[in-house]
Amino acid sequence: MDYKRIITHVFNEITSGENLGQVSAYIPELAEKSPDKFGVYLTSLNHLEIGMGDHQEKFSIQSIAKVFSLTMAYKMLGEKIWERLGVEPSGTAFNSLVQLETDKGIPRNPFINAGALVICDILISQLKNPKAEFLAFVREITGNKKLSYSEKIAASEKATGYRNVALCNFIKSFGNIENAPEVVTDFYFHLCSIEMTCEELSKAFLYLANGGKTFDGNNPVITTSQAKRINAIMQTCGFYDESGEFTFKVGLPGKSGIGGGIIAIHPGKYSIGVWSPCLNAKGNSYRGMKFLEQFTTETRLSIF
Amino acid sequence: MDYKRIITHVFNEITSGENLGQVSAYIPELAEKSPDKFGVYLTSLNHLEIGMGDHQEKFSIQSIAKVFSLTMAYKMLGEKIWERLGVEPSGTAFNSLVQLETDKGIPRNPFINAGALVICDILISQLKNPKAEFLAFVREITGNKKLSYSEKIAASEKATGYRNVALCNFIKSFGNIENAPEVVTDFYFHLCSIEMTCEELSKAFLYLANGGKTFDGNNPVITTSQAKRINAIMQTCGFYDESGEFTFKVGLPGKSGIGGGIIAIHPGKYSIGVWSPCLNAKGNSYRGMKFLEQFTTETRLSIF
Amino acid sequence: MDYKRIITHVFNEITSGENLGQVSAYIPELAEKSPDKFGVYLTSLNHLEIGMGDHQEKFSIQSIAKVFSLTMAYKMLGEKIWERLGVEPSGTAFNSLVQLETDKGIPRNPFINAGALVICDILISQLKNPKAEFLAFVREITGNKKLSYSEKIAASEKATGYRNVALCNFIKSFGNIENAPEVVTDFYFHLCSIEMTCEELSKAFLYLANGGKTFDGNNPVITTSQAKRINAIMQTCGFYDESGEFTFKVGLPGKSGIGGGIIAIHPGKYSIGVWSPCLNAKGNSYRGMKFLEQFTTETRLSIF
Amino acid sequence: MDYKRIITHVFNEITSGENLGQVSAYIPELAEKSPDKFGVYLTSLNHLEIGMGDHQEKFSIQSIAKVFSLTMAYKMLGEKIWERLGVEPSGTAFNSLVQLETDKGIPRNPFINAGALVICDILISQLKNPKAEFLAFVREITGNKKLSYSEKIAASEKATGYRNVALCNFIKSFGNIENAPEVVTDFYFHLCSIEMTCEELSKAFLYLANGGKTFDGNNPVITTSQAKRINAIMQTCGFYDESGEFTFKVGLPGKSGIGGGIIAIHPGKYSIGVWSPCLNAKGNSYRGMKFLEQFTTETRLSIF
Repeated sequence: MDYKRIITHVFNEITSGENLGQVSAYIPELAEKSPDKFGVYLTSLNHLEIGMGDHQEKFSIQSIAKVFSLTMAYKMLGEKIWERLGVEPSGTAFNSLVQLETDKGIPRNPFINAGALVICDILISQLKNPKAEFLAFVREITGNKKLSYSEKIAASEKATGYRNVALCNFIKSFGNIENAPEVVTDFYFHLCSIEMTCEELSKAFLYLANGGKTFDGNNPVITTSQAKRINAIMQTCGFYDESGEFTFKVGLPGKSGIGGGIIAIHPGKYSIGVWSPCLNAKGNSYRGMKFLEQFTTETRLSIF
Repeated sequence: MDYKRIITHVFNEITSGENLGQVSAYIPELAEKSPDKFGVYLTSLNHLEIGMGDHQEKFSIQSIAKVFSLTMAYKMLGEKIWERLGVEPSGTAFNSLVQLETDKGIPRNPFINAGALVICDILISQLKNPKAEFLAFVREITGNKKLSYSEKIAASEKATGYRNVALCNFIKSFGNIENAPEVVTDFYFHLCSIEMTCEELSKAFLYLANGGKTFDGNNPVITTSQAKRINAIMQTCGFYDESGEFTFKVGLPGKSGIGGGIIAIHPGKYSIGVWSPCLNAKGNSYRGMKFLEQFTTETRLSIF
Repeated sequence: MDYKRIITHVFNEITSGENLGQVSAYIPELAEKSPDKFGVYLTSLNHLEIGMGDHQEKFSIQSIAKVFSLTMAYKMLGEKIWERLGVEPSGTAFNSLVQLETDKGIPRNPFINAGALVICDILISQLKNPKAEFLAFVREITGNKKLSYSEKIAASEKATGYRNVALCNFIKSFGNIENAPEVVTDFYFHLCSIEMTCEELSKAFLYLANGGKTFDGNNPVITTSQAKRINAIMQTCGFYDESGEFTFKVGLPGKSGIGGGIIAIHPGKYSIGVWSPCLNAKGNSYRGMKFLEQFTTETRLSIF
Repeated sequence: MDYKRIITHVFNEITSGENLGQVSAYIPELAEKSPDKFGVYLTSLNHLEIGMGDHQEKFSIQSIAKVFSLTMAYKMLGEKIWERLGVEPSGTAFNSLVQLETDKGIPRNPFINAGALVICDILISQLKNPKAEFLAFVREITGNKKLSYSEKIAASEKATGYRNVALCNFIKSFGNIENAPEVVTDFYFHLCSIEMTCEELSKAFLYLANGGKTFDGNNPVITTSQAKRINAIMQTCGFYDESGEFTFKVGLPGKSGIGGGIIAIHPGKYSIGVWSPCLNAKGNSYRGMKFLEQFTTETRLSIF
């Protein structure tokens, strides 16, 4: 498979095509990114690395970080975490409160905001210094000591994140948050603030292509079964109420963030990070989705 | 991979374990099946065939037939069908009317009842003799000339299927059903009435493991891309509001029916039919789900 | 109170003002009415009768007839009817199916379509010739032997009433409809087809201003307690999801129909019928609502 | 009308009958009240005052205070307040978040918690010392200088009021709260903490029976039209999703609180305060509801 030729071809085609949607105005730090930014980076298990465009520029990974927090909680507590949240697609938007009322405070899955908040709560109960220890964990699995929170972004999110505060208090009212809501949302806002490049993203997530082990192979992050299951959840729930569409068109497990980043995994083969800040109506990167769709079409390889 | 040994081992283990849930009382013909029935049949692309238990006994495939009707409509009209329904998991039960109200009569996916009714409507508009031609299509892809509707089951469903009549009229009120509701539901009740054995089921669905081509390889049912996409929809929507759970635990695209049957596909490898009539609370076969979970665990092979 | 002066003044003011909204296009017979039609008729318990504008012209009373069917069922079965439906405002549109799913087929009140269908079902189970006996009942309480169904309107409703067929089958699927859905909807479409003038409407409903007795006083239609309770239900549920607004602005129990008619009752004082075909976004007569608001403002009399 | 005889008779009958339901465990201060407490107090416009049972004992009026805050905001801003909330019954529980999502942060009415929070926000924006000035207002209309917040109850509510914090932040996320959520909920928790006796309650609300003027007649609290409209809103929305039931059975505008208090108004006649701590499944006083139903039945007087 000549990945390099295909990536180059698809990248150029997407770049020359239209760039629809809107850069997120959720917080100022996201809004100021140029809509024309576009980067791609693929890392394969057989040591191929291919980067295109703005693949060296940092961006806010936002909800993509929810995969890291799930990984850490899953590693620490195993299947026990599913007593407090589910693995079902929600059929609703990422920040919906509706289902929580019917479901008595049990979030549908770890990738909607409600579920990510419960995962944060689990980690806070387990860790002495949650923010520091979580960052250390992400640095370790990415092999990148320089990764850090953006305090500026975290502060911005805190200043405007009323919906997430509402979600956290709502879940707390059902008894499914153990810690103080302020502490949980503070941790949540921090983990969403991590900044990475496409290259870093692609390398960080290789453990999900590699049966739970980091790329060098010496470092099992989680068990193979756990890695498969995280991939499975990404497949059904990684793109909010566009998860079916992504599965249908791209055919790979993946996760998006409103900073415009997407990570997609081909288990046993590669991990690919894409970034373009313009979002479609569902909050997923317009060019990122399009690139991955065309890429798996041209490689004729998906998990299906 | 010694499939035979694993299937035998898992089958015996499940058989000796408990058998929870309830045989569906939806119609008398389903209710009369013994809860102890249990059959498995695997057909692989490399000509392996393994059957266990009641794999030669006919049962009502019910909603599994929705994959055949989707296949036929998709083959005839291509991507145009998605103007009338989506590919998103619904997050709700199989016969829910709630989302249709919000979504203005556009069903979330072809595997909830609402979506299957729209697919029926599409086929009725396309075919001269819908029931006869659909049956011919299913006979062709299964290579089984003896398959037939059960008029008795179809009549039973008609006599009690008020919810489906409601769904069909509701969608019609939004303008997304072209034909008379009685005609659409009559076709729908017939397609759900088809009876097959685990062996027939397994062989019938091999085209989805085989890139859209029937097993003998001479007969392309649908394109490879279409086969991948149907697998993708089964992955996210095949088990109603337990789709995430099935993806999480089994890790294969699949589809269940309230007759207790499940078909699961490993693209590029095999197709496996399972049947046991006791259903869990979500309406999926208790032993069928358990068998497939343990089977993919022991083979250590899933698409993730 | 100089009702005549106030009615004349308000009528002229409304007539010279704007006439917003749309004539219902639900069925052709409604759509063909001139948007400029406007009639008012008040009948008081102290023998006052005041008519203005098109008060002698027949129009389709539509959902206003639901008060007659409730009255007849309540008279026959008493409080027992509340085992099958509630008296709560729904907070949703008149033809919503959503709440029925949560409420297991028990309609919130007798004035949303779902509840009116259950009332029809109750009457069908009680009566030998439901359509004939119901018409006789309405003729009796109105003292008007010429009232009749419009077979043309009933046929039109049948031809397009998929939403009502959906509702009826949906409720049947929960077991809260005893008779065949076709029979229930046929009765329902007929009762909605009755045509009356403002004058007839005003006189017909005097029993609800008069403690349950018809105007001549010799004929108790229902008990005083039942009359009060029907008024109470009209107050909270008579205008679908605009019931609160009507109560707030007009302050009288009332019921509207999509033909543009409204009946309002001042218990102990009068009954007033208003008709103007242009409907606001909630499906209630634009000028009818406005007239009644200004009328109770200028009379300084409401039940509050 | 011999109110005294009827009240005595009904009071004794209810007292000797069963006392179902549960004392609210929402906060410790409510939970510690004896379930057997039962008081009634009626004050009529023609200077009748009748008290029975525990009518001199203070209890937490809770949501009944929402009528005072609505009155104050309505007095200050007039019809403008309806730009930020509606007057429709919600059809859902008092603390539901579901509708807010559909309605984009505009609460259905001022008596569900969401609406009461918006009213608090309006007052905070208008007043220099919201808590002090609101208390002064309540003292003035009740003619009772000793009324006060219970700091203990307010603190208890704050400690457990996650659902209200969620609601407030949720509305803020739609832009319909101007002030900081902590400030709004603090005010809200305080107003709910006011304690009154049945006698005080009955006298305090006489302005709603008296066309907006306090009992001595010299002091117009609000206009007659505003008083009628507040009565109208109490009629359709005063008892959450049991408002229709209360209207149906009692036939008077009223408002309940989870402390077990109920105030009911007969415009032009009287105001009656009832208190009994055991609540039915909808959160309204079991004996309070029963007493008022039987009372209006025996007086044969309701607004309908």
